[in-house]
Amino acid sequence: MSQHASSLRELEQHDAFVGRHIGPNDAEIATMLQAVGHDSLEALTDAIVPAGIKSAEPLALGGSLTEEEALARIRAIARKNKVFRSFIGQGYYGTHTPAVILRNILENPAWYTAYTPYQAEISQGRMEALVNFQQMCADLTGMEIANASLLDEATAAAEAMTLAKRAGKSKSDTFFVHDAVHPQTLEVLRTRAEPLGITLRVGTPEEAMEAECFGVLLQYPDTFGHIGDHRALAEAVHARGGLVAVATDLLALTLIAAPGEWGADIVVGNSQRFGVPFGFGGPHAAFMACRDAFKRSMPGRLIGVSVDTEGNPAYRLTLQTREQHIRREKATSNICTAQVLLAVMASMYAVYHGPEGLARIARRTHRMAAILAAALRNAGIEVGGRFFDTLHVKGVDAGAILARAREAGINLRQIDSEAVGISLDETTTRADLAALAGLFGASIAIDALDAATPDALPAELLRTSPFLQHPVFNTYHSEHELLRYMRSLSDKDLAMDRTMIPLGSCTMKLNATSEMIPITWPEFSQVHPLAPADQAEGYAQLVSELEAMLAECTGYDAVSFQPNSGAQGEYSGLLAIRAYHASRGEGHRNICLIPESAHGTNPASAQMAGMKVVVVKCDANGNIDLEDLRARAEQHSANLAAIMITYPSTHGVFEEDVVEICQIIHAHGGQVYTDGANMNALVGLAKPGKWGSDVSHLNLHKTFCIPHGGGGPGVGPCAVKAHLAPFLPRTLGGDGKVGMVSAASFGSASILPISWMYIAMMGAAGLRKATQVALLNANYISKRLAPHYRTLYTGRNGLVAHECILDIRPLEKATGIGAEDIAKRLVDFGFHAPTLSFPVAGTLMVEPTESESKQELDRFIDAMIQIREEIRAIEDGRLDREDNPLKHAPHTAQQVSASEWKHAYPRELAAFPLPSLKKQKYWPPVSRVDNVYGDKNVFCACIPVDAYKEEAGA
Amino acid sequence: MSQHASSLRELEQHDAFVGRHIGPNDAEIATMLQAVGHDSLEALTDAIVPAGIKSAEPLALGGSLTEEEALARIRAIARKNKVFRSFIGQGYYGTHTPAVILRNILENPAWYTAYTPYQAEISQGRMEALVNFQQMCADLTGMEIANASLLDEATAAAEAMTLAKRAGKSKSDTFFVHDAVHPQTLEVLRTRAEPLGITLRVGTPEEAMEAECFGVLLQYPDTFGHIGDHRALAEAVHARGGLVAVATDLLALTLIAAPGEWGADIVVGNSQRFGVPFGFGGPHAAFMACRDAFKRSMPGRLIGVSVDTEGNPAYRLTLQTREQHIRREKATSNICTAQVLLAVMASMYAVYHGPEGLARIARRTHRMAAILAAALRNAGIEVGGRFFDTLHVKGVDAGAILARAREAGINLRQIDSEAVGISLDETTTRADLAALAGLFGASIAIDALDAATPDALPAELLRTSPFLQHPVFNTYHSEHELLRYMRSLSDKDLAMDRTMIPLGSCTMKLNATSEMIPITWPEFSQVHPLAPADQAEGYAQLVSELEAMLAECTGYDAVSFQPNSGAQGEYSGLLAIRAYHASRGEGHRNICLIPESAHGTNPASAQMAGMKVVVVKCDANGNIDLEDLRARAEQHSANLAAIMITYPSTHGVFEEDVVEICQIIHAHGGQVYTDGANMNALVGLAKPGKWGSDVSHLNLHKTFCIPHGGGGPGVGPCAVKAHLAPFLPRTLGGDGKVGMVSAASFGSASILPISWMYIAMMGAAGLRKATQVALLNANYISKRLAPHYRTLYTGRNGLVAHECILDIRPLEKATGIGAEDIAKRLVDFGFHAPTLSFPVAGTLMVEPTESESKQELDRFIDAMIQIREEIRAIEDGRLDREDNPLKHAPHTAQQVSASEWKHAYPRELAAFPLPSLKKQKYWPPVSRVDNVYGDKNVFCACIPVDAYKEEAGA
Repeated sequence: MSQHASSLRELEQHDAFVGRHIGPNDAEIATMLQAVGHDSLEALTDAIVPAGIKSAEPLALGGSLTEEEALARIRAIARKNKVFRSFIGQGYYGTHTPAVILRNILENPAWYTAYTPYQAEISQGRMEALVNFQQMCADLTGMEIANASLLDEATAAAEAMTLAKRAGKSKSDTFFVHDAVHPQTLEVLRTRAEPLGITLRVGTPEEAMEAECFGVLLQYPDTFGHIGDHRALAEAVHARGGLVAVATDLLALTLIAAPGEWGADIVVGNSQRFGVPFGFGGPHAAFMACRDAFKRSMPGRLIGVSVDTEGNPAYRLTLQTREQHIRREKATSNICTAQVLLAVMASMYAVYHGPEGLARIARRTHRMAAILAAALRNAGIEVGGRFFDTLHVKGVDAGAILARAREAGINLRQIDSEAVGISLDETTTRADLAALAGLFGASIAIDALDAATPDALPAELLRTSPFLQHPVFNTYHSEHELLRYMRSLSDKDLAMDRTMIPLGSCTMKLNATSEMIPITWPEFSQVHPLAPADQAEGYAQLVSELEAMLAECTGYDAVSFQPNSGAQGEYSGLLAIRAYHASRGEGHRNICLIPESAHGTNPASAQMAGMKVVVVKCDANGNIDLEDLRARAEQHSANLAAIMITYPSTHGVFEEDVVEICQIIHAHGGQVYTDGANMNALVGLAKPGKWGSDVSHLNLHKTFCIPHGGGGPGVGPCAVKAHLAPFLPRTLGGDGKVGMVSAASFGSASILPISWMYIAMMGAAGLRKATQVALLNANYISKRLAPHYRTLYTGRNGLVAHECILDIRPLEKATGIGAEDIAKRLVDFGFHAPTLSFPVAGTLMVEPTESESKQELDRFIDAMIQIREEIRAIEDGRLDREDNPLKHAPHTAQQVSASEWKHAYPRELAAFPLPSLKKQKYWPPVSRVDNVYGDKNVFCACIPVDAYKEEAGA
Repeated sequence: MSQHASSLRELEQHDAFVGRHIGPNDAEIATMLQAVGHDSLEALTDAIVPAGIKSAEPLALGGSLTEEEALARIRAIARKNKVFRSFIGQGYYGTHTPAVILRNILENPAWYTAYTPYQAEISQGRMEALVNFQQMCADLTGMEIANASLLDEATAAAEAMTLAKRAGKSKSDTFFVHDAVHPQTLEVLRTRAEPLGITLRVGTPEEAMEAECFGVLLQYPDTFGHIGDHRALAEAVHARGGLVAVATDLLALTLIAAPGEWGADIVVGNSQRFGVPFGFGGPHAAFMACRDAFKRSMPGRLIGVSVDTEGNPAYRLTLQTREQHIRREKATSNICTAQVLLAVMASMYAVYHGPEGLARIARRTHRMAAILAAALRNAGIEVGGRFFDTLHVKGVDAGAILARAREAGINLRQIDSEAVGISLDETTTRADLAALAGLFGASIAIDALDAATPDALPAELLRTSPFLQHPVFNTYHSEHELLRYMRSLSDKDLAMDRTMIPLGSCTMKLNATSEMIPITWPEFSQVHPLAPADQAEGYAQLVSELEAMLAECTGYDAVSFQPNSGAQGEYSGLLAIRAYHASRGEGHRNICLIPESAHGTNPASAQMAGMKVVVVKCDANGNIDLEDLRARAEQHSANLAAIMITYPSTHGVFEEDVVEICQIIHAHGGQVYTDGANMNALVGLAKPGKWGSDVSHLNLHKTFCIPHGGGGPGVGPCAVKAHLAPFLPRTLGGDGKVGMVSAASFGSASILPISWMYIAMMGAAGLRKATQVALLNANYISKRLAPHYRTLYTGRNGLVAHECILDIRPLEKATGIGAEDIAKRLVDFGFHAPTLSFPVAGTLMVEPTESESKQELDRFIDAMIQIREEIRAIEDGRLDREDNPLKHAPHTAQQVSASEWKHAYPRELAAFPLPSLKKQKYWPPVSRVDNVYGDKNVFCACIPVDAYKEEAGA
């Protein structure tokens, strides 16, 4: 080694993280470039990306930071947040995340890097956890069925409103909203109702008794803590053909009568206080439970129990036909993402505490509230009655009380100038009670008051029904048992910690550990969403810096982080366009052009934003048919509101005409919405905001490294050009022409550090290289597989963008082997399948992302080639058309080790089709799951114990 | 639910953690008590524990704290530590733990709850990581073979000394020690040399040229940073038949010639700076590498490559005959524990960075040191030459400089009143350089100096040989690849997150997450062991509180935390006894009585402490033969130093005579040493210090919840009665009559929070209940298995203590099925085997611990009963004596799914002997490992690539 070969500056290697994030190293990149026939990443980029859209300048984001440097910077940002004791309530409550859940779910890549369980056979573990969540929500609410989580309580309430409209019998267009729902819920209801032509009427439950409406939303206990008796109201609403929706609190329901027991038809709420921290508003898992009759109308994901080919119980996403991507422009919901990771945490919290543990927490919380109320009353202060955890304190100088509280490091809710709210929770201590009483000058002899003070729960609404009686909630109460249960579930699943997940249009890139580390710091996780601004200065800086970063990456001028999913981002963008037209006196513009290849969320969002969808054709190459586009734009010129395009297209191609498309739309007075799903093919190379697009949402959980978490959280900020900036959703209590779209002003704020860290560590050069390697990886797969599978669409120079669609239809015609068989066969090789039959039926869309190494790509390519050989063997008659390893994939260990082997092909071919599998093998816990059975026999609760017993005895 | 049924005080449930730690709940405890025939835990305890030793009073430890309360308290303690920038060096250097390693190894129960890899088939993952560690150490040191870690650099140097004595040809009793070794190394050498009759001579390398000695220890680079050229010295020592031991720095060796290249015979050092934080001194993984010729004399564990029954490569602990438990009183080492978890971290650090990455870090560190030296010299300050990372700055007012440094939050090393040491490292930044230069009033134009300043490495000692060329160090450089590699390794292994590990005498109880959380807080992990006391006040409080807790649990008066393993604790205890006798003018007392059932470490430690071992017989029931004991005590009365006993005995029985034994020994002037291995059967019930014992070590990694980490770290504090307290090991630079036994004054200080948390959360009542349930669990297993297996030893009332020995010998006689076959068969059921053939050959010793739930115990019992049925089938001729599932266990997935099934029993019986296994199945990665082949063909490095290729092609 030569003396002093490199300068210190070189040795400092501030871009070290770039090499950790990007899979192939430079030598491998050179080899792969050779395979795709280009000399350099630059040459490859030039051959793929149309010159007309390419950015001339590098991103103005500065250099890369090392992991340590970036962590030090974000630590400094975090320190600007102040962690107070928060008794604000209003839908968010303190909670203890059990350490064993924190470490082994939230901080465990086996859980957080998993994808949405579309491939049932490799997702049994997280689906079991989600069924537990469904059972928990159904049990506590007293309803027949619950879904696998929604984004937040406010949007869940909005979904309840539209479900009531769809499912109810009333012809009314009015929805009656309890005047004591949480303010953010009312805000979102207003936003969502208006474009759909729904009239909101806000009032007291007494007023609701007589109101003509298709549904009522009640908050129970209400936002001020009061527990109302709505039994008569429910009867009245039902008598008029309306439905009763209830927003509620799961912890309270361990002590008070379940809404399902007094007439609710739909119940929604937030499971946050089941072990998920405040996080300045999100992410948390909301839920919806309803009557069984509405299950086919219920929005969101639903996990059901079906059977596999051996007749064993097996979980799957059920009733997928309800989803927006099928309903498209007929949809009244664009729900696509869930909050799986948080729902799993909440479900494990219930599994760990069990029914008695939950009730004990609830009782403790209630006793503390009752004691505090007594102390205040003894001091002559008025406190509302019939409460669970929240005191409505009246007749005080609220401003003075709050000022005193803040000096003591305490946050209360200011209701008005003479009233404050105090919400207690699982974390409340005796010291807290003393401090709270002290704020009002009251003395508090806790044990004496405890003995002297009765409960404040309404006697006629005490819960008498049991809940969480399934063994899963009564078995894992020691830490070892829970730890092993969680491990056993995650072992059933394939996540990014074991395999690439090459899902076309749904990038799964590295979720680096250093990106994940800040999110569990108390300075980010323990800030109440309604904490005063001076306690959230770190968040303000984080949001503002990330906004600047994303604006620079996209060429837009302003970004709202409120949308907590990509679909929410779309909806926000379309609302902005709508409001913009209205502000210019062109409120009549309501036509939204959408190419036929679009994601299903696009038309659904357009419909929800009050627009009419007009479909634009695509040509044989999958590109937008420019002639048809011109014709449609011309035809609808007077009313043209927008076009929604995806770029690069969902066909995995950089269309050459995108600039012209923008010009055509603008010429007809429309706005251009570019779906950000494929932004990961653009960062550092081209900016939608510069080539003529007006608005995009960004999938931070895709392009910017927020993990999928098994199917959520999503984060879908909406980025716009300056003329649309005034029309981004307003914050709670803030100004703005467009209402809130989510419950929390900054959406899933607590996970924004992930994207901030990613961008900071990659820097301008790293981000650009990442995009280039994403293009390289996709083209490497396409080229290496070309002798075996045809890539359906290519752009200039025969190259694809960041993904490639492999056409299985000719093979299927010849052999009967379809794309699904290949997807299931890939499980035998230990792979998560690519995207199946989207955007073209009978195809596989492969998107490898830049984080996948050449070794991993080669492992995948080897598997796909071996599969092609198996198909060839069918063509040649060496394998039977029906009895072959593709049709019977995936193979479980039980099947291949059974004495009786039923197949014409050998066991080794079933289980170990490549020698490398002998070193490492994933065994699916179930064989192929029966979809038809599952949809016919919808069962969405925990598997009855009998089913287990039978199996064990078998 | 009734109104206000429980008081707030009950609802607060401060003892919630007790129910999380203890497996069975109260209903299950009642059922189990019924099975063992007692009415209550108290009745069971009375039936087991001799009345003569039972504590009358509850532990004075106060009540239990909840996890949150305990975390809040220890957080307050942690905050009393101050985290400075430390440039002290002296064997400890700043390092960045890669976040992906932190989260997925150190914070991952799959790694930290694993046990020592005695059961090879279920330990392939961590053994691969340890072979990587061995390869890394051998490569970097230039030696032929390296072991799988030692406790710390100082004890490794002491082991090198005794190895040189054993393995060398010189008859000399003198060991020559470089006067520039680290001070703590010299301290430990002095302690260890004296009882063994070794004379230490300390001097310069020049003086060593002529010294008559059996070995030399050099520090390279030395403690002041100087890199000496010892080639001529090595030749001279060899010429006289002596051996050359070198203590070195792995990072430096990426740039300077390996000791193996210039004559070293033995090389030791600390791998701490490969990603393991300071931790106030430990734990870190030290290493020893040596010539191949010494491999059978080398202390510590050695992982070798053997083959399984299918001929596939398989790792195992090799050459176990070297271990202390075999050599017993002939041992010159009592090494038993390693630092596996830390060795795994260090090896993964090397895997992640690779040879180029490590060299880059080293070069950057060196360039910074060279630049700083140049800046200081430009300011007229004298700095020593030929250094890697450490500057020896001379001719300054050291006191003034250090005072200035501390004001700036910086620690330097004070060498003397006019010299300071500055050690740079991976974490050093430009800002650090500026601050450091500023302390000396020097200006530093970093880039200009970089260009102008040559390296300070000696030209004749630059490294030219390659290292870490094996693919494992050149493949996993992206985060995804490393993450998946680590996951694939941990998936091969069984740890506590998947199964109980019912190892008799080696308790594996729950390592609760809340106990683990504080250890990675910077306030504990980032404190240099030589940081000034005012920066370590939190540690002082932690140590003092834990000392009080342990004294209360044991009845002793003082505790030293310096011993970093149980064997080290034993050694410390015996040194204390030895020094106590000497202080009373009875230095001739050197006889140590040891029962024949003792752990092998007991005689080994006694031998190392300069004592002569006299074995005491045991009776047919496994108890100490009181007659023989009296006779031996009488016989050696004049010279009796001590007795070493284990209580309850290693036979799992509470001996009735323990008080009398103590009295006999004391009557003859001896001291009583009670091995603390089984303290988990005593806590809260009885105290050795109260029934007559004088000293014990405690296995914090057993009784007090520090995880085994796959075979280390261990923590073995030494607890003594007041009269022995003055003879506990002194701290570095401290007073005390007995020298240091470990490198760090407080041993593995950074993991002491684990035991503190455990005791704080359990409280007095919880600890007592834990012990009682441990007794219950063991007796439950013994009773339930009684119809199938005989429990070899029982105490009063036919009950065992906390473990039971199942006698397999009659079954073996009848069927040829031995204990090992059962151990291997348990793998097919997904269990880690109990302790095999200790303390009695042909037996299994089962210790379930209180953390195991009734479900888990029943699962184990079911497996053992099924195994007994299989043995019965052999007895009955229904299964073949040779071709049966026991002899061929464990079965791999490959075997049971091969087309050809070679066995007379069905595949299902091999793989799924119980129906519950169909729901969850662990597959061993290899079949039974060939021990004979492994010991005959010792190979302890990474498997050559060819072996993989052959396999892949096969």
